[in-house]
Amino acid sequence: MKLTILGCYSATPRAKAHPTAQFLEIRNHHFLIDCGEGTQTQLRRYHVKFSRLRHIFISHLHGDHVFGLIGLISSFGLLHREKELHVHGPKGIKKLITTQLKLTKSWTPFPLYFHELDQKTPELVFENDKLTVESIPLDHRIYANGYLFREKEGPRKLLIDQAEKYKIDVSFYNAIKQGKDVVLDDGTRIPNHKLTGPPPPPKSYAFCSDTAYQPEMADQLSGVDCLYHESTFQQDRADLCEVTKHSTAEQAAKIARRAGVGKLILGHYSSRYKTLDGFKTEAKAVFEQVELAEDGKIFKW
Amino acid sequence: MKLTILGCYSATPRAKAHPTAQFLEIRNHHFLIDCGEGTQTQLRRYHVKFSRLRHIFISHLHGDHVFGLIGLISSFGLLHREKELHVHGPKGIKKLITTQLKLTKSWTPFPLYFHELDQKTPELVFENDKLTVESIPLDHRIYANGYLFREKEGPRKLLIDQAEKYKIDVSFYNAIKQGKDVVLDDGTRIPNHKLTGPPPPPKSYAFCSDTAYQPEMADQLSGVDCLYHESTFQQDRADLCEVTKHSTAEQAAKIARRAGVGKLILGHYSSRYKTLDGFKTEAKAVFEQVELAEDGKIFKW
Repeated sequence: MKLTILGCYSATPRAKAHPTAQFLEIRNHHFLIDCGEGTQTQLRRYHVKFSRLRHIFISHLHGDHVFGLIGLISSFGLLHREKELHVHGPKGIKKLITTQLKLTKSWTPFPLYFHELDQKTPELVFENDKLTVESIPLDHRIYANGYLFREKEGPRKLLIDQAEKYKIDVSFYNAIKQGKDVVLDDGTRIPNHKLTGPPPPPKSYAFCSDTAYQPEMADQLSGVDCLYHESTFQQDRADLCEVTKHSTAEQAAKIARRAGVGKLILGHYSSRYKTLDGFKTEAKAVFEQVELAEDGKIFKW
Repeated sequence: MKLTILGCYSATPRAKAHPTAQFLEIRNHHFLIDCGEGTQTQLRRYHVKFSRLRHIFISHLHGDHVFGLIGLISSFGLLHREKELHVHGPKGIKKLITTQLKLTKSWTPFPLYFHELDQKTPELVFENDKLTVESIPLDHRIYANGYLFREKEGPRKLLIDQAEKYKIDVSFYNAIKQGKDVVLDDGTRIPNHKLTGPPPPPKSYAFCSDTAYQPEMADQLSGVDCLYHESTFQQDRADLCEVTKHSTAEQAAKIARRAGVGKLILGHYSSRYKTLDGFKTEAKAVFEQVELAEDGKIFKW
């Protein structure tokens, strides 16, 4: 999995602090998660091939997570996109976008589908043969969901040296990866377990922003490889978390520890902090594998 | 007058080519003209004191002129603005913004007024004791207006040396500037024309984007000090102007020449041109006083 951070700051955009947007690549699938103002410019700045995008997931309808969506959709029109585009997000997102398309007389020469969410329990949002995406109900001032991306178990791993030993033609390789035995010309059956090893473990990514501290969320996140959890504040302003329904870096780390994730990425920083070091220090006291999101930074796992 | 170009490129925003937005300062009044995506970031980048803004003028509802407006209004809310804000623009702009404010649950703790335009002849859009703003009907694919900003004639200019010669107390100075005579203690009347000179000539600025070539527009623009006229294309692609209802640099210069303006500023460049020199060369062949808009450039007159 490859995650490009396009923006990771809260509230009002500034020249060097962009609002939330992430580009996620999984096995030749390309997803945009949230779309604050200026996201299309960030996609260009970091040379992301966004024409490949088919699915956009919006966590909630606060401006710093969605105000860039109409511009991106409109630009796809100007760029003569033809491929379909799916937007997943809270109930209301269809009206938000279509009202603007209509009033600005913007044409979309491609099929545009909206998939609106209104459940308060996790649900399957997207599925194909390679992966699933589930919603993660969040606790914010407005209806909000995170998203959990999971690869499905892939084909078994072909043991090339074994296949060559039995002189098996390459045209059988796909069948072998799907678990089939091979019958040689002399009638000998080679059982699949002699030709393959187990598939690589499926990878996963969870995006959680914006949310108050919800320890029970850890059950759904159990064992994910990488968790992005917002940390708008540090403990010095834990009082603000209660009012604004955000989390501290320490709280994010507690979720990571309880869920036993592989790695925690912090983000959605309040502009009141001039440097980011304090977020990492605070989280590391609770959970070791902590990284800081920064605009333009790429994470791979 | 002081004009800061925040963005002067057409269509889709790029990292170094921002869509239309301008900040105009006239005698302690602050106006924003158009508001493409990313305008609030541009205001910060160029250190424009945008809290002083009271009036925003939107030419038309294409995205590259208006998609940044909701973000700016929303940020004013987050910044606890209290002063009233007036948005002038085509019919539909109120619905465009209020639908988004409602769906994103954004509070505006300040009075927000919309003034919608739907006339096809010039009308007075704003007036106070210092200046007027008129609409300039444009010919585009969607209902559009430019705006003509005119200072009113100011007070007469006090001739300090004359006032001192007659030993007139400074408390009379304001009355003198308003055209009053002064009666000295000995009963002598000093007529106003001995104490004042004519006021400085009022200045003016016309913003015209987006529009097809409309020669007759020059009548309304006659004698303005500074004209911004779009030049999306050069003559090599005049064919595209007809389809898209835009202008070439040469056409913009013809308007400037016919109207006898002081200075022409070109902008709204298509991204198909890699450098801007060609726009200036083409316009200068028709009209001498040509300048190129560039993001961040400041013009004063």
